[in-house]
Amino acid sequence: MADDLAMGATAHPLEYIFHPRSVAVVGATSASYGDQFVGSLREIGFPGPIYPVNPKANEIMGLRCYPSVREIPGPVDHVISSVSATRLREIIEDCGAKGVKVLHLFTSGFGESGEADRQELEQWVVRRARELGMRVIGPNCMGLYVPASGLTFTYGFPGEPGRVALISQSGANAGEFVHVTSLFGLRFSKVISYGNASDLNESDFLDYCADDKETEIIAAYVEGVKDGRRFFRALKKAASRKPVIILKGGRTEAGGRAAQSHTASLAGSARVFDTLCRQAGALQVSSLEELEDVTIAFRFAAPLPGPAVGVVMEGGGRSVLSADDLTLRGLTVPALPDEAQAELQRFTFLAGTSVRNPVDTSVTWIGGDKAADLLAETIRVVASAPNIDFVLSYEGLQWGPPAPGEGPDAQVKRMEEILNVVVEKSASLSKPIVFALRPTFSPSAVQATLRFQQTCYRHGIAVFPDIGRAAVALSKLFHWQESHRKQATSR
Amino acid sequence: MADDLAMGATAHPLEYIFHPRSVAVVGATSASYGDQFVGSLREIGFPGPIYPVNPKANEIMGLRCYPSVREIPGPVDHVISSVSATRLREIIEDCGAKGVKVLHLFTSGFGESGEADRQELEQWVVRRARELGMRVIGPNCMGLYVPASGLTFTYGFPGEPGRVALISQSGANAGEFVHVTSLFGLRFSKVISYGNASDLNESDFLDYCADDKETEIIAAYVEGVKDGRRFFRALKKAASRKPVIILKGGRTEAGGRAAQSHTASLAGSARVFDTLCRQAGALQVSSLEELEDVTIAFRFAAPLPGPAVGVVMEGGGRSVLSADDLTLRGLTVPALPDEAQAELQRFTFLAGTSVRNPVDTSVTWIGGDKAADLLAETIRVVASAPNIDFVLSYEGLQWGPPAPGEGPDAQVKRMEEILNVVVEKSASLSKPIVFALRPTFSPSAVQATLRFQQTCYRHGIAVFPDIGRAAVALSKLFHWQESHRKQATSR
Repeated sequence: MADDLAMGATAHPLEYIFHPRSVAVVGATSASYGDQFVGSLREIGFPGPIYPVNPKANEIMGLRCYPSVREIPGPVDHVISSVSATRLREIIEDCGAKGVKVLHLFTSGFGESGEADRQELEQWVVRRARELGMRVIGPNCMGLYVPASGLTFTYGFPGEPGRVALISQSGANAGEFVHVTSLFGLRFSKVISYGNASDLNESDFLDYCADDKETEIIAAYVEGVKDGRRFFRALKKAASRKPVIILKGGRTEAGGRAAQSHTASLAGSARVFDTLCRQAGALQVSSLEELEDVTIAFRFAAPLPGPAVGVVMEGGGRSVLSADDLTLRGLTVPALPDEAQAELQRFTFLAGTSVRNPVDTSVTWIGGDKAADLLAETIRVVASAPNIDFVLSYEGLQWGPPAPGEGPDAQVKRMEEILNVVVEKSASLSKPIVFALRPTFSPSAVQATLRFQQTCYRHGIAVFPDIGRAAVALSKLFHWQESHRKQATSR
Repeated sequence: MADDLAMGATAHPLEYIFHPRSVAVVGATSASYGDQFVGSLREIGFPGPIYPVNPKANEIMGLRCYPSVREIPGPVDHVISSVSATRLREIIEDCGAKGVKVLHLFTSGFGESGEADRQELEQWVVRRARELGMRVIGPNCMGLYVPASGLTFTYGFPGEPGRVALISQSGANAGEFVHVTSLFGLRFSKVISYGNASDLNESDFLDYCADDKETEIIAAYVEGVKDGRRFFRALKKAASRKPVIILKGGRTEAGGRAAQSHTASLAGSARVFDTLCRQAGALQVSSLEELEDVTIAFRFAAPLPGPAVGVVMEGGGRSVLSADDLTLRGLTVPALPDEAQAELQRFTFLAGTSVRNPVDTSVTWIGGDKAADLLAETIRVVASAPNIDFVLSYEGLQWGPPAPGEGPDAQVKRMEEILNVVVEKSASLSKPIVFALRPTFSPSAVQATLRFQQTCYRHGIAVFPDIGRAAVALSKLFHWQESHRKQATSR
């Protein structure tokens, strides 16, 4: 299928970049701990040949190592280069001679060093590569993670492909995004770390992802924009087809200085960038965590039928704060209708609990197997209320350190059993349910939390790391939906 | 010492409340899992007699159980009652006859139920208790955690006393605050969960904590205020003597409704509350997490010599975002002087790193034992720069899932060793250092993170759960300092 796409008449001109038949890793390290590119490509199962290139080694991680790209026997589509900037001239000629299509320069020390000769070198690299028929990704970046093609750049990324594309000027931010969000169920079509963007840049990749049928949601981390008009066109095209969630780095003088040191980016005016995003219909966020949360919301909680949240949770003080948080972020927490309150009162303790909304459940204090059923039933009743659009359940795998003699994991085990039943029963509700997590304090609770997240995403349910972050992400999702609905209507 | 204070001529009129000689737990459960009040009082080592009271049991958790308070042989200073609201009349008479001084009503189902007869009962309880010479804490609350006196209300609270007082209308919020912040080193003078505040209320406790010599920082969670003028007086008195950090629950219509169901509180106008706090010189926060973070900042990062942060961390993209975050929250991230940059360049890789500020270290990629020394040296150089007021180091115990064959904990172990050296060497710097944590994804990393937090607080160093939260907390601390400095100068 990848080949069909790559060669189809309607394929995007950059499609081939994501489907190399072979990869050479130039400057692969022969250290005992192995080369990260070679190792992670093997871990994820790249289906074609992987060629380590290093004149000082015969073998790297069990693969035959070549002294140069020219001496590799078969065709080489994609080259990852880790050798120092100053040694690139020869390598580029080798790649050209070999018919390489894409040169990914992991190497840094170019324009971002602030030194004139390095800036010139960067320009020369791109010019020469283009003359030789190659496109350049980078320099100063991690390159591509495309699970469907078996491409990756670090260990532990999921092998399973998905619907989210991430375009990131920072490799570490890309890595953190994938590591963190994959634990909440995100899977990826394309993740592109593009660094200094000397050749292929943010606009190329946005335009590609706009067309890419495997991409349903685009998340982006951008420090600088090479060509404002082109970027606006690509962003508008992408945002008219799918959600584009974008984080701008370098909004302040200090951040801009850091961006220049990082990817030689001219950060530009934050206000101009904001206007541009608003006009293009892209959704801006203000931190990497928010980029993660909002993308999770789009993947697992969209479409949100409306802003009215039914909140199910335990603890009166947290109920008050949750109602405040959700309201102040732009959602609503309406009082449940009398009938729903009456129904809830049949099985909720009177004392110290509320059935108005938030519904303060206190069911986990009930012994035996009843707690899970009662909590699931509470959620069902709340979801059935006509003035509620979706349910937010605030739960955790731990309430505090264990009682003496209880054993460190008894509480966690019990909560996990309760929540498994609740997720199972809630997945088939007619309205969406999302979960927000309470804090944990022990390794066993963390382990159980990771399992709980997995159970949720396998049921298509969004989970957020805390209630404030849930409030922000869900509100952003809802208000984005509203503005796009209005735009669609006004057309 | 406690007795000196309690009986001293200058003691606060409420001092005796915090130093009971004995505690009776009325309605203690005889269930096999034990009674939480009895069990936790024994866990923390309450030094006087604990008397479970339950007419249906002879023994609870190995302690002799009494059918009523009257039948307890020795004097009873403090009674915790868990029996239902409707059975209270007799218990109050018993307590009065026995000369009980403080009645803590864990029991809920009073005013917050919204039912007229329960509201009347609540009023009667307080009236009758006062006639019999008792003060009431609650109803509908967890009561007191006073480690110096061996008082507590749940398992796992630290036995060691400290300098922070927490006044919380919510018991669960108080519990969460203590559980979470104790892992970052907070220890407590008094934690007071006061629920419906029918007798002793927020103003009484604020006034007490203002006078309390064991309290250096006051954190508070308040839903409603009984008497605005009295509250303002108490708040102003407290805030003129020590930092008062305050979270108001029920800022919105939905939150106010929840507050009424929770503690029968009339939430009142958020704007009036804000004005009142501003005029009194108290520091307001907007979430429980922020209450935790800011209190940690006051405890371990105060006084902050100025707003200029030297940021030491790994990862270019995160450096950019950190600089933005810190600046946008009201701190500054000035470029390091040329001399400091030159000094850093001696041992920082040129490629892909910056020595301007944030300083992108990348030292953890260096093999062997050098990484720790280089990181510590980087921090030392940054701290020495004349235009830097304090150092923020963004570190974590994990960079991602392990490489195949590396073993799940190798990376975590290595990072832990590095950071232990760094903390040891940085604790003696002439300027404060604080840490913010990167995300983790494995139980072993969580375990190591908890150990790292402990190492830090034992060295008097503040740690924050992420960089955005660090930015907010430190900026709030700095700007509070500035406004109090101005007030002091203008006097």
